[in-house]
Amino acid sequence: MSARAGIVVTGTEVLTGQISDRNGPWIATQLLDLGVDVAHITVCGDRPDDLRSALRFLADEGVDLIVTSGGLGPTADDLTVATVADFCGIGVDHDQQVEDQIRDIVREWSIRRGNDPDRESVRAAIRKQAMVPRGATVVSPAGTAPGVVVPAGSDHPVVMVLPGPPRELQAMWPAAVDAQPAVEAIRGRIELETETIRMFGTAESELAETLRDAESTVSRFGDLEITTCLRVSELEMVTRFPADAMDAYRAVAGLVVERHGDTVYSTDGSTVDDQVAALLAGHRIATAESCTGGMIAARLTDRAGSSAYVMGGVVSYDNSAKTGLLDVPAAMIAEHGAVSEEVASAMATGALSRLGADIAVSTTGVAGPGGGTPEKPVGTVCFGLARSGGSVITRRLVLAGTRADVRERSVTVAMHMLRSALSD
Amino acid sequence: MSARAGIVVTGTEVLTGQISDRNGPWIATQLLDLGVDVAHITVCGDRPDDLRSALRFLADEGVDLIVTSGGLGPTADDLTVATVADFCGIGVDHDQQVEDQIRDIVREWSIRRGNDPDRESVRAAIRKQAMVPRGATVVSPAGTAPGVVVPAGSDHPVVMVLPGPPRELQAMWPAAVDAQPAVEAIRGRIELETETIRMFGTAESELAETLRDAESTVSRFGDLEITTCLRVSELEMVTRFPADAMDAYRAVAGLVVERHGDTVYSTDGSTVDDQVAALLAGHRIATAESCTGGMIAARLTDRAGSSAYVMGGVVSYDNSAKTGLLDVPAAMIAEHGAVSEEVASAMATGALSRLGADIAVSTTGVAGPGGGTPEKPVGTVCFGLARSGGSVITRRLVLAGTRADVRERSVTVAMHMLRSALSD
Repeated sequence: MSARAGIVVTGTEVLTGQISDRNGPWIATQLLDLGVDVAHITVCGDRPDDLRSALRFLADEGVDLIVTSGGLGPTADDLTVATVADFCGIGVDHDQQVEDQIRDIVREWSIRRGNDPDRESVRAAIRKQAMVPRGATVVSPAGTAPGVVVPAGSDHPVVMVLPGPPRELQAMWPAAVDAQPAVEAIRGRIELETETIRMFGTAESELAETLRDAESTVSRFGDLEITTCLRVSELEMVTRFPADAMDAYRAVAGLVVERHGDTVYSTDGSTVDDQVAALLAGHRIATAESCTGGMIAARLTDRAGSSAYVMGGVVSYDNSAKTGLLDVPAAMIAEHGAVSEEVASAMATGALSRLGADIAVSTTGVAGPGGGTPEKPVGTVCFGLARSGGSVITRRLVLAGTRADVRERSVTVAMHMLRSALSD
Repeated sequence: MSARAGIVVTGTEVLTGQISDRNGPWIATQLLDLGVDVAHITVCGDRPDDLRSALRFLADEGVDLIVTSGGLGPTADDLTVATVADFCGIGVDHDQQVEDQIRDIVREWSIRRGNDPDRESVRAAIRKQAMVPRGATVVSPAGTAPGVVVPAGSDHPVVMVLPGPPRELQAMWPAAVDAQPAVEAIRGRIELETETIRMFGTAESELAETLRDAESTVSRFGDLEITTCLRVSELEMVTRFPADAMDAYRAVAGLVVERHGDTVYSTDGSTVDDQVAALLAGHRIATAESCTGGMIAARLTDRAGSSAYVMGGVVSYDNSAKTGLLDVPAAMIAEHGAVSEEVASAMATGALSRLGADIAVSTTGVAGPGGGTPEKPVGTVCFGLARSGGSVITRRLVLAGTRADVRERSVTVAMHMLRSALSD
């Protein structure tokens, strides 16, 4: 048995949907990488009773480690440390060393903002954040809130208490998992292998059929924990298994590639973004976007080092931008409409030459909810891909979903057109 | 007491961080709008035992309604209906009417894809999805998976079972909450008011100080459930309260506006995006982006109807795009560097004239992680805002965080510059 963990995310703003939680999945990924199985992520508001219930639930589930995020700030609704200490049946002590450390951070920050760092309100906030459960290991703050790791007791597992801002939590994570109680909680874990296959163009039900066949033909199929997930038109199959079931995994993966090989684009964990970035080395790319409004350029430049190959792009939302910045003939727009393969082709060619690129991708479509016609219903998107010295490839698709779905799916299609063109 | 609900999100892909959950927060928001208090959101993988534990936990917490999402698909890891029925101690029956409905949907879809809709594997998948817990109300599918609403029993509350794909879940929601068992579960609820104040430029600790003062001066302060949340440089204060505590809310809101009025930009729930969109009516906007790489254009065009005022933009990642498409003098870049207020200004002016706009915003910065210098460390971003017939405003900031943080924060700053300029 590998060690099991539970995660408690606190924060009324997360519970009520004001912000979406990034910490739960991030912590889960880190724990999985350490070979720790995550049983549950729970989200509750800033109410001590609900937090206590969530801790009790996870302790009763027999997890070896609970990780909490959030509720360490200076405001009155930040109650995690006190609640965890109470749950574990231990007192809370003031820690002068921690207080000094926070004061130094806050002082520098206050002075930079022109505030008095010795105001009573600031001192009270610092004192609150310097209260440490007895016997816990302190994790130095990345912001102003320190974390704590409370050792296991007779009726509770190790509890790791971390702040809510993702940047602080992530910066403090290495020290937190190195704290003695955490090391003890995750000792004796079994490392599970994780393998991912990514497809573009296979339906989830088709993959399900292949997996049903694999179930009856592959021995030790039962040792593989397989999850399939459709996201933004891509299908992902993730398999976790003990190292000695590698042969079973290979047999299943072989069957999947045999049946769906034309749509399988990744078996090594790489995403289409990873592959496009690698393939773009030595190239110069430009974008010409209408319905995706800059999302392809944003996605390409999301990656550190992308300035080596991204020249830039044009968001030609209005037709005047298509003619003025991308040299699409106005007569072509009048004849075929802005949403047409002809215009997509001209946009890609225009971006190629205007931005001095050797590859360019374009989109023009009806993202909706308005603007659809019988000939070009909402979701109709035309794509163009131009290469220097080569012919232009165009595609026309009708994508399903909301405005956001159509835009997101269009970006995915464009990335796959790029991958496919660059790997030829 | 208002009705309380718990949410169970299933899916190993969510638990393991492959995808981030959008359903939990979405359902929570809908329930809050119905006056139902959400106690917990829990996420578990596709293991029946873990799902059963999560259902037990929420039932023991005494919630009136449990909503589940996910696990209704055709694959073997989709076990929610069977597990919920087992948890509620009721059998599962085949429903011919539901099967016919799914078959019609799948048939059309298979034929369009050129597949045989009568293959045994497809028939098996349809039969699986047509199994309904005894006594449950069926919610017609938006994709192929129907939902069910199971009435309360002696040891469990009403359980509403919905699919995982957000589009399907959201489309089915109105019918699900109208199902008789759901109506009974949320009957007798107390509607709570929700008010939101948004600030840009106030620190969370400063707001905490104001709220501590309000606590001692405003009567019935204790009836207000206040949460404060910092996100992408904006500070949000959300207050929920029974209608008869409106005076207390008004007193607190008055104090917040009195102390932080220069940073308060919204007291009516509107976001900066809402405000900028409204202010742009009758205008024509253009963007010129370097470090944000298209994110501002993408955010502006995220909104239906934005084609009325978005002309387009240029992603001038490479310096050649700054000179070629935005007319930034090469000598200016050589003298001041691409990351400078001079270049930001020229970019905005260039976008204004090239795209025929009357307002334009620009960004140029060092998003990192590489590229920083002592004079222009990582996080340095220069902004420009140009208006036709007006002078150009520029700003230079050093933003904290990762590459993604710097880019995201830059977009927020740009949106606030637009709001501020347009409201003058």
